[in-house]
Amino acid sequence: MVTQRAVRLSDVAAVAGVSKATASKALNGSPLVSAATMARVREVADRLDFRPNALAQSFASGRSRTVGLLTHRATATFSRAVVMGAILELGRRERAALVFDGRINAHHEMSESIRTLQDRRIDGLLVVGAGYGRVTPSITHQFEVPVTYAFAASDNPDDSVFVPDNEEAGYLAARHLVEGGRTRIAYVSADRDDLAVRRREKGMRRALEESGLEPVAALYGSWRQEWGEQAVARLLDSGTALDAVFCGNDHMGFGVLDALAARGLRVPDDVAVVGVDNWEEVIVDQKLRRLTTIDLDLIRVGAVAADNVIEPSSDGGERFVEPKLIRGPSS
Amino acid sequence: MVTQRAVRLSDVAAVAGVSKATASKALNGSPLVSAATMARVREVADRLDFRPNALAQSFASGRSRTVGLLTHRATATFSRAVVMGAILELGRRERAALVFDGRINAHHEMSESIRTLQDRRIDGLLVVGAGYGRVTPSITHQFEVPVTYAFAASDNPDDSVFVPDNEEAGYLAARHLVEGGRTRIAYVSADRDDLAVRRREKGMRRALEESGLEPVAALYGSWRQEWGEQAVARLLDSGTALDAVFCGNDHMGFGVLDALAARGLRVPDDVAVVGVDNWEEVIVDQKLRRLTTIDLDLIRVGAVAADNVIEPSSDGGERFVEPKLIRGPSS
Repeated sequence: MVTQRAVRLSDVAAVAGVSKATASKALNGSPLVSAATMARVREVADRLDFRPNALAQSFASGRSRTVGLLTHRATATFSRAVVMGAILELGRRERAALVFDGRINAHHEMSESIRTLQDRRIDGLLVVGAGYGRVTPSITHQFEVPVTYAFAASDNPDDSVFVPDNEEAGYLAARHLVEGGRTRIAYVSADRDDLAVRRREKGMRRALEESGLEPVAALYGSWRQEWGEQAVARLLDSGTALDAVFCGNDHMGFGVLDALAARGLRVPDDVAVVGVDNWEEVIVDQKLRRLTTIDLDLIRVGAVAADNVIEPSSDGGERFVEPKLIRGPSS
Repeated sequence: MVTQRAVRLSDVAAVAGVSKATASKALNGSPLVSAATMARVREVADRLDFRPNALAQSFASGRSRTVGLLTHRATATFSRAVVMGAILELGRRERAALVFDGRINAHHEMSESIRTLQDRRIDGLLVVGAGYGRVTPSITHQFEVPVTYAFAASDNPDDSVFVPDNEEAGYLAARHLVEGGRTRIAYVSADRDDLAVRRREKGMRRALEESGLEPVAALYGSWRQEWGEQAVARLLDSGTALDAVFCGNDHMGFGVLDALAARGLRVPDDVAVVGVDNWEEVIVDQKLRRLTTIDLDLIRVGAVAADNVIEPSSDGGERFVEPKLIRGPSS
């Protein structure tokens, strides 16, 4: 294939035997052009494979087919997945992404970024936060175009916000364990002040209640692997009989696996373990998988939020994206 | 701050007391406008904070300020970092990114993607590969705009290709170990057919030779943690005295740490360990770091490649991005 310069409107006009202005009107369906001329021009345009200049179209339509992305530490592991999901979905829908990172909450840079995005005539804006920990001040009112938030908490309840479903994550994990015959399930997680910790526990308790169960223990510590080890040691030392552990994240899960092995307990025969995050998908290939886990599908959080920028739903508020259970050898 | 509609060219023209056409010429520095008029129009434009419509500017200049990104499995761990680096750098330079993923090497989709990118009047194209393993067929000749490749091997030696510097990674690791007083350094890596494995070894040997040393052993297996464990067991069982291990990646490094601990060897007192990849940066915070490692700085590979799309250097060929040594507790 050799480089081919694009067919121009003037080529179409020449072949159809009309002026450029008439050709343009014909292609835009103007009522000022006769049906016969319109048909002839369109036939020629099809035959020559004429594709209108995107820049001219943007100028004429006022639409840039570009979406702004305001991000906060976009290279952090969680945010990176959300941003990737968003830009890939925008690409699938042939929208370009103009990314401004690290400027949320930095007031001076923020207003400059907003100004630049307005100048670029973006068709919409996606704000990607850094999870629940930090509430993002709503900037929806500063734009005439649709604004959507992903992986963020906005301070305006009317904003369209897309987040992973932590409650469903807990529900999926616990239901999976119950369906596998487990009845003595412990919850080992991080700080109870953390919204994700509480939502996952809520979902877990709901699944257990449906089978007339409740957790045999709930221990709160940190997100670290060491805490998973310590928590299991504490449970076993206190004589808590358990046949499953639902862990706050995969790091804890790895600690739990180590602690169970150190006590000579077999996984999953004696104790099943489920984590959250699907880190093993991030860092290694499937062959190395050790844990059953819940994937919060942050890629999809970014993708559906991007879709909402392109075609905004009429109602705002917090929307939850379904997590996925990923089977591994620990359950 | 309330939403403010942008100041228009017609506002500037009205205040300056000239026609829109004259205002436009004045702002574009046309010689058809007198110096006095130009000064007056520009003073008004400044005072009103007039910002030209980006779409009109693009149409007039033929530049979209949009860069195409062709990627292959952009969500894979390595590629994801390169893509993130690229889109963040493009954002810093106020270029939008139009991302087409998964279409390299899929011939039908590829030509459709190329056509769409041409139609969008992108200012340049960045092709992000999936590392060395797969040679990307050069598509440079299919575009009139600059094409740059990142984390890829192009089949055209004239193409501008940006890759991590694996040889320097090996050099940095070995020099760090030698400077720490280590003299009996083993290399444990993956398949020798892999270009990265060979380049890292070459750099390691160069650093050792500078101190009159050579590796006490070089073992080749897989990229897996288990191989790191097995390799150390094999070295110790065969009576190889060693005071350091340079590992092909961090996974192997973790296996090496486990195997050394199982043999009662202290890290770093008895044996120092260095990996490659900086996984712990990806998956956890710094507090959990266990390994000294070499970060190939894939984020920067994407960023400098993006810069090269915006301002292409005159000469093509393969360009290497410097890796970074990340100190951890294992050395």
